[in-house]
Amino acid sequence: MSPAPDELDDHAAMALALAEARAAGEAGDVPIGAVVLVGGQVVGRAGNQRERLGDPTAHAEILALRQAAAALGRWRLDDATLVVTLEPCPMCAGALVAARVRRVVFGAANVDAGACGTLYNLCVDPRLNHEVEVTHGVEADAAATVLREFFVTRRA
Amino acid sequence: MSPAPDELDDHAAMALALAEARAAGEAGDVPIGAVVLVGGQVVGRAGNQRERLGDPTAHAEILALRQAAAALGRWRLDDATLVVTLEPCPMCAGALVAARVRRVVFGAANVDAGACGTLYNLCVDPRLNHEVEVTHGVEADAAATVLREFFVTRRA
Repeated sequence: MSPAPDELDDHAAMALALAEARAAGEAGDVPIGAVVLVGGQVVGRAGNQRERLGDPTAHAEILALRQAAAALGRWRLDDATLVVTLEPCPMCAGALVAARVRRVVFGAANVDAGACGTLYNLCVDPRLNHEVEVTHGVEADAAATVLREFFVTRRA
Repeated sequence: MSPAPDELDDHAAMALALAEARAAGEAGDVPIGAVVLVGGQVVGRAGNQRERLGDPTAHAEILALRQAAAALGRWRLDDATLVVTLEPCPMCAGALVAARVRRVVFGAANVDAGACGTLYNLCVDPRLNHEVEVTHGVEADAAATVLREFFVTRRA
């Protein structure tokens, strides 16, 4: 089913997440971006801010989830989709479960720390009290390119 | 090696974490508490505030790590020990890895979602870029009792 005209689909949401990723990279943080949608509307969006905030938990996903919860006035986000440029790490995949997020969409696979299918799949484990539907590979090349260019520039 | 007289050992730190847990329970949140130590000194302490803040990430461990990072002015906590009443969930165990925490000490095992040895051991995985030393069972009965009494009261 196509979204209504005013609702963002996965690709449009990923374009916003990529913009957050690029802005994070320009500010000196590893370029990863995330958007939270409810009913196709943005309720949270953030880039990684670990370096800028000096906060080890300030990954894009955590910041976007906290924004969404603040906007909605509730911690239970069971109607939300989180769209993120890179496959979430264990902390962020665990946060999706903790927040009862309905669905996660990611771009590039995270071979070093991916916890939504690569090293772990914390989103799909019937022993936990919630499961998150996973869609992967949306705009994966663009997400990987943003990261690669960031690290090439830093090494130069 | 015993700690110096002004340094907290695991049991003294757990007593503080238990106090945070009880305070969280009295405020209506699931009673879990955490303390972060560097050099035996407290640099972060918090109880679970998920309900009060309406924030799905506001577990005691996440809040205590964020406090510690703010106090120290850096996200990399490789000289820190986190002491928590209940075995961390996947989000919080992942946060220990993300923050490069040196050591975690927990009280009661978490049979529903424990990620430091029960369902997962995210702290000890050579594929990830950091490992966290795990000590378990410190004041486990006290930690379990605080939780049990909270849920008994709520069901009454």
